[in-house]
Amino acid sequence: MFDEIKQAAEFLATHDRIRLLCHLSPDGDTLGGAFAIFYALTSIGKQCCVECGDSLPQKFQYMYPNQVDDFEPEHNVTIDVADIGLLSDAQQKLKFSLCIDHHERNNIPAKYKCVDSEAAAVCELVYLVLKHMGVSFNKKIVDCLYTGICTDTGCFKFSNVSSKTHEIAAELMDLGADAYNINFKMFTQKSIARLELERLVIENLEYFYDSKCTIVFVTDDMMKLAGADESTFDGIASIAVCPEGVEVGITVKEKGLNEYKASVRTNSFVDASKFCGYFGGGGHKRAAGFKICGDRQTIKNEILDRLKKEMFC
Amino acid sequence: MFDEIKQAAEFLATHDRIRLLCHLSPDGDTLGGAFAIFYALTSIGKQCCVECGDSLPQKFQYMYPNQVDDFEPEHNVTIDVADIGLLSDAQQKLKFSLCIDHHERNNIPAKYKCVDSEAAAVCELVYLVLKHMGVSFNKKIVDCLYTGICTDTGCFKFSNVSSKTHEIAAELMDLGADAYNINFKMFTQKSIARLELERLVIENLEYFYDSKCTIVFVTDDMMKLAGADESTFDGIASIAVCPEGVEVGITVKEKGLNEYKASVRTNSFVDASKFCGYFGGGGHKRAAGFKICGDRQTIKNEILDRLKKEMFC
Repeated sequence: MFDEIKQAAEFLATHDRIRLLCHLSPDGDTLGGAFAIFYALTSIGKQCCVECGDSLPQKFQYMYPNQVDDFEPEHNVTIDVADIGLLSDAQQKLKFSLCIDHHERNNIPAKYKCVDSEAAAVCELVYLVLKHMGVSFNKKIVDCLYTGICTDTGCFKFSNVSSKTHEIAAELMDLGADAYNINFKMFTQKSIARLELERLVIENLEYFYDSKCTIVFVTDDMMKLAGADESTFDGIASIAVCPEGVEVGITVKEKGLNEYKASVRTNSFVDASKFCGYFGGGGHKRAAGFKICGDRQTIKNEILDRLKKEMFC
Repeated sequence: MFDEIKQAAEFLATHDRIRLLCHLSPDGDTLGGAFAIFYALTSIGKQCCVECGDSLPQKFQYMYPNQVDDFEPEHNVTIDVADIGLLSDAQQKLKFSLCIDHHERNNIPAKYKCVDSEAAAVCELVYLVLKHMGVSFNKKIVDCLYTGICTDTGCFKFSNVSSKTHEIAAELMDLGADAYNINFKMFTQKSIARLELERLVIENLEYFYDSKCTIVFVTDDMMKLAGADESTFDGIASIAVCPEGVEVGITVKEKGLNEYKASVRTNSFVDASKFCGYFGGGGHKRAAGFKICGDRQTIKNEILDRLKKEMFC
């Protein structure tokens, strides 16, 4: 990876007027990586901007700059974008100079690619690139990088964490990253609506097949009762799979009259992506989803039938 | 601290027949630290045992040895024990050779003291002590040490985490600590009883002083309803302080007829240890506790009175 890191660092050091592109449904890693580079390049007098096809979530407000320059970008750099479809339609037509990513499969047709699927977060790679550039790490840069690392690893819990991840976290803390407050915002603090929604989800969890599977319907009424909006729901799907012994947890969210979106989470052996494929959906091995129409009892029966085949056949 | 680490290492290296003492209501850190030393000393042929006044929680089963030697201990070493009252009555009468701890106030009358309140977990200190001894770190030792560090830091989230904590985590992972599975057991997976208890705690949270403080009583009836035992309760106290805007969250657990144990968690400016000191308890700045007797309404009023003074005077 050293050559790719060096190449990316040299590209950024020797070019100006750079547009940094984040993926749709932006998370802490794509934003943290892009804004870290933004602050690094603007601190040495370069023109640079961050662009995302979706609006930027309020929860990452502390990473965003107070003001941005207006200029015509010349070079496009994607950050944490695995698939061209994760850019807006207009962005998809651009030419890409550099792509920095950590996903296993990356199809961005960039001139230079700095892709390492061993990295737990793209921010690990961005840190190494900026370090190679000899950037002076200011507070904004280290907070952005730390945010990417902690959010993409579930605060150092996921299987993608390596000793390298901890080493970089240590260096970022030494450079002034406000780890406690960032983690507090990302993981500890919850809105009252979120807590209420969690309570209702636990209350409505149904256990099947010797408690190896759970299903919970999250209805509009429950959302209203909790005072929750769509952003409150983010991450709720992981509750269904956390009870001890559960292999598959399915959260079915009401989306309209007899319209539902199912989020499937699995722990070790059921392929969530394959399971959802049966219903016309998809995703990753441990997290996937599909849309489904019908009344609740029919949907539940269909899911249970398929689960039985998937788990016990 | 180097001298204290060296002294502790030299004591352990030059003595045999050691009894390692954990605090009552044992957690991952006191047990992780004690068992790490146990495996280190037994691996070089010394006789050693771990003792705790309470029974050992099932959730840390993977740390416990398959068999233990029967022998007469000569030297007593306390691990993570801040207060003599956190030992059993019989243990309190012992003579203590060495005390390894990371609490701000430590009153163990030991001949040698290795106490550093800057350490996020006692396991950070135990790691440095064992490293100084030149111990060969086997899988059991590193898993025990990692367990202490991740449990005492809420998986690297709490304000006690320093760059040193991450450096040690990195070294433990390089030495083979099974971080993913330990974190999965400690933080991701929950018993159904635990989920139920969380639900009941959220349901019974009361908000005071413009929702800056919360109090929740966890009664025997709630524990029974959830199917929870004492080990299920571990960590529950953090729920009370997680709603957005809350500075102090107090969880008051029924311990007997009109007997309660309050766990105080604070977010940024209220000193939990000082607050609990007023009621004869103690602990850390962000997490402390005290025992209190009386009926529930009286206890609530007393706590609210004190909270008012602490927060607004």
